[in-house]
Amino acid sequence: MNKRTIKFSLVSCLIGSLCYGSALIASESTQGAIDFRESVMTTFKWYLQPMGAMTKGDMPFDATLFKSRAEGLANATRLDVTEGFPLGSAEDTEAQPKIWDDWDDFKLKYEALQKEATELQRVASSGDEAAMKAQFGKTAKTCGGCHKEYRKKK
Amino acid sequence: MNKRTIKFSLVSCLIGSLCYGSALIASESTQGAIDFRESVMTTFKWYLQPMGAMTKGDMPFDATLFKSRAEGLANATRLDVTEGFPLGSAEDTEAQPKIWDDWDDFKLKYEALQKEATELQRVASSGDEAAMKAQFGKTAKTCGGCHKEYRKKK
Repeated sequence: MNKRTIKFSLVSCLIGSLCYGSALIASESTQGAIDFRESVMTTFKWYLQPMGAMTKGDMPFDATLFKSRAEGLANATRLDVTEGFPLGSAEDTEAQPKIWDDWDDFKLKYEALQKEATELQRVASSGDEAAMKAQFGKTAKTCGGCHKEYRKKK
Repeated sequence: MNKRTIKFSLVSCLIGSLCYGSALIASESTQGAIDFRESVMTTFKWYLQPMGAMTKGDMPFDATLFKSRAEGLANATRLDVTEGFPLGSAEDTEAQPKIWDDWDDFKLKYEALQKEATELQRVASSGDEAAMKAQFGKTAKTCGGCHKEYRKKK
């Protein structure tokens, strides 16, 4: 090899390593984002489940537990789950690729959950069973509204 | 079988079913709690990681990103992770069984994180790089303080 070939090989090697490194960092951070969004949804589930069971009559109504979970849900929806959806993070997950085509609508749908969950927290502090159950229904509907459009069918 | 034997068998069967049902519900709800606590920790990781990298100099300081993650962390610490540690939920997890012997201390250690993360959010709104990094250190220390006592060594 002459000097020019050696130099070219070294530069190629360096560029290659940098690209590999960047791809690795990108894929690590994508996985971090996926873990984050899935974790936020799992916290929602924790708060929603007993309120859902009470609303459906699968467990006795407990105003204190309902209020506590409504407060937890409102706090959890203050985490911006949309941060967990960077472009290109649909693969091998339940996310529909059209999330990124309809990004503004996707964000609006999340804001609808945030709004209804905050209202649920307010209503739950009243202790009015019927009102709490009705507002739980409205809140859960916003979850479904987003999943229907943007989550792959299992 | 006489009537008495049949009655006894029916009652035994009913009690058995109820016990099995309760154990199933208990184990389902324990798994839900474990999923919840692990998810809350994963959201912490999402917020902490870039602030940690900036503090250590592994990535360039970005006041806007730092502020946003500090705000996210403060919100995430408003979720009461201790709800995710019902008695008997240590098995096959990283939780040390002594959590339940030292429950008040365990809760105090979590409150220390909540306090420092709220302070980090306040300091981060100033944009003062040195102060933000110093307060990040204090916040991260409270994670370590709890893990050292209450998380099993890997």
